[in-house]
Amino acid sequence: MLVRQILGLKGGSEVVTLPKGVTVAQAARALSEKRIGAIVVVDGEVPQGILSERDIVRELGRRGEGCLSDTVDSLMTREMVTCAPEELADQVLQKMTDGRFRHMPVMEGGAMVGLISIGDVVKARLSELAMEKGALEDMIKGF
Amino acid sequence: MLVRQILGLKGGSEVVTLPKGVTVAQAARALSEKRIGAIVVVDGEVPQGILSERDIVRELGRRGEGCLSDTVDSLMTREMVTCAPEELADQVLQKMTDGRFRHMPVMEGGAMVGLISIGDVVKARLSELAMEKGALEDMIKGF
Repeated sequence: MLVRQILGLKGGSEVVTLPKGVTVAQAARALSEKRIGAIVVVDGEVPQGILSERDIVRELGRRGEGCLSDTVDSLMTREMVTCAPEELADQVLQKMTDGRFRHMPVMEGGAMVGLISIGDVVKARLSELAMEKGALEDMIKGF
Repeated sequence: MLVRQILGLKGGSEVVTLPKGVTVAQAARALSEKRIGAIVVVDGEVPQGILSERDIVRELGRRGEGCLSDTVDSLMTREMVTCAPEELADQVLQKMTDGRFRHMPVMEGGAMVGLISIGDVVKARLSELAMEKGALEDMIKGF
């Protein structure tokens, strides 16, 4: 299964972004309203980093509520691990579990075309695996 | 693959808990220090609910920093979906993706014996699937 298909199953590839310079408190509001786990921070159209629920809680734990008036770009993860639409779901899951992160921007030709979460990938992969396994079992029974 | 085996692969089944009555700010500190995504709230030894990074950020977004001085039991998810050590990894993943949550207490004989995350399950399941698929392919080649 390819990342492109997972984006298709998600039904749309809208990515929620926030411009750099807005506060962490505003980002928490956006995450809460949109019921999502991470937000991409952009400068114009260009992704600069990703800010997740985890980034916010980690900093809250370290420094307390003062971090809520910081800007999103001071807290975001700058070194984003991204994937391409033609990458395999299992490769993406492996990167996510190895790196212990849960969201990955999908890049194509220098532009961000989607954002997938570990939940999206698992959901898609589970249904595919059920089919693959069934097909292999049918082949074995057919012999 | 069984939940019991996933707990084994995690290397230990220690669950980080906090007594009800402590503040959300303290919970954020514990999540940050232990580098985990959710904490089980207990009354004595009895689990009362689960508080995740998501619960904290959702409430921060809705109400702002005031929620940090609330108690963990006012914010936690009370209706915990739990699993048993003998449940299958795929069943657990299905429950997690259907319910959109990422942590599940493992209960045995009324006691909590572990906590597994979607990342733990995916990691274990990926390595098992690679083996299963290889075995089926070998069977097909063998005919």
